[in-house]
Amino acid sequence: MARMHPFDEAIDLHASAPQDTPHAFTGATHPAYANMVGPFGGTTAAQLLQSALLHPDRLGDPVALTVNFAAPVADGEIRFVARPVRTNRSTQHWIIEAHQAEGVVATATAVFAVRRETWSDVEAEMPADVPAPDALTRMPVKGMPAWPQRYDMRFVEGAFPAAFDEQEQAHSRSTLWVRDEPERVLDFASLAALSDSFFPRIYVRRRRRSMIGTVSLTTYFHADSALLVQVGTRHVLGVAKALNYRHGYFDQTGELWSPEGQLLASTHQLVYYKD
Amino acid sequence: MARMHPFDEAIDLHASAPQDTPHAFTGATHPAYANMVGPFGGTTAAQLLQSALLHPDRLGDPVALTVNFAAPVADGEIRFVARPVRTNRSTQHWIIEAHQAEGVVATATAVFAVRRETWSDVEAEMPADVPAPDALTRMPVKGMPAWPQRYDMRFVEGAFPAAFDEQEQAHSRSTLWVRDEPERVLDFASLAALSDSFFPRIYVRRRRRSMIGTVSLTTYFHADSALLVQVGTRHVLGVAKALNYRHGYFDQTGELWSPEGQLLASTHQLVYYKD
Repeated sequence: MARMHPFDEAIDLHASAPQDTPHAFTGATHPAYANMVGPFGGTTAAQLLQSALLHPDRLGDPVALTVNFAAPVADGEIRFVARPVRTNRSTQHWIIEAHQAEGVVATATAVFAVRRETWSDVEAEMPADVPAPDALTRMPVKGMPAWPQRYDMRFVEGAFPAAFDEQEQAHSRSTLWVRDEPERVLDFASLAALSDSFFPRIYVRRRRRSMIGTVSLTTYFHADSALLVQVGTRHVLGVAKALNYRHGYFDQTGELWSPEGQLLASTHQLVYYKD
Repeated sequence: MARMHPFDEAIDLHASAPQDTPHAFTGATHPAYANMVGPFGGTTAAQLLQSALLHPDRLGDPVALTVNFAAPVADGEIRFVARPVRTNRSTQHWIIEAHQAEGVVATATAVFAVRRETWSDVEAEMPADVPAPDALTRMPVKGMPAWPQRYDMRFVEGAFPAAFDEQEQAHSRSTLWVRDEPERVLDFASLAALSDSFFPRIYVRRRRRSMIGTVSLTTYFHADSALLVQVGTRHVLGVAKALNYRHGYFDQTGELWSPEGQLLASTHQLVYYKD
């Protein structure tokens, strides 16, 4: 039997015993997606989403997800409680909580929807004249935590700084091709995780070590399942930049594009930093 | 005694009876902020935030707010239940629900924080060469619903279309000066409401009547109280554009700037549309 992809292992959730909270799920942090301390936040976001995706009352596909990282996630078991607080004809609203022994470690809200074809258009601009992934080299991951080793990242600009030389840059913009490593067909859970895969903008901007932590992450899913399958295992183009750094918090805005120029997701986050 | 500002009336919440859910609040829709049907979503967002701001256990000031509009809000009473699900040393995480007779009509999550001075910088660019508010005329509000009459909007570009002539535009970008009408000193609640005051991008882009409804609204508050007081009752510069329209949902991203060029808030929303 083929071994499961590590991402599928990482988001593998088990229904809790029926006498427990109805439809609660148990998962765990996965060593393949470890960060410096605790897990990669993208995996936690994907687990929170997964707990709604697996819920028997689920309607449609995710269109919006907001994850608030409330406390450091400890390595080990995590309990997910997803509640569909409102189900309409074609939309559904979720509140999801992630618990560990000492309390709530993350919360999320999600909007799911049954989509139908309408007039559609991309107004954002995909970066032009970007070399193909094959023409770029993969970011070296030696010495990095486990999670970046699970992504094949090929930077066009704004790479993770080779040295924290404190040479402040004019901007924090990054453009890169990125896919799961090993390859895996894109789905909503992996798109949620990819939304958190941009390195903290303050590292790119200041080339200075600082303590950081995402406090809130929002992703809008423009892609539906059919489009995700069409992208398949290929690289997607990620673009990220910061808007504002002020008094301990900066925000970062990003886009994930299909090779054909469809905007798969737009994603925003607020990050705590200590200088 | 001076009459209350209509916005203060609109966000005026009363603690529920003690035998009820602890720290629940009751508010109501306000005719001064009525939309075509039901209330202006910005006022609902402000009420949700206010229920955490008024909570006796509140720590610090809001840095992130996500509001999901789960169902149409009926005119009348709304019950708000704000729960601080996690309180850390300098951050606090909230889940907030808005209830009406028939169920949950909106949910929100918020992150509050005690901020301290750090290295700060604006990376986004405020539009240059924008005329001062006095050099522009206020958008005519005759025939509009009540809520736009509560804002003094002075458009530089991308005004609400004078006619729905179905002349599709190249983009949906808007730039405008906006303040409360009558004047009111800016605070977190009014900044939350302002974040929802951009007209739907699809109207600007397609100049075509379509049914729309915001499903999720996220605001990052870069300003602290001192900066808000400094802006006072003056206009702030709003900028908004759409990124992507696809199969019934588009996203809109916006910025609110102080006259001095500080980014007060960045805000993003996902909007349902029917063409």
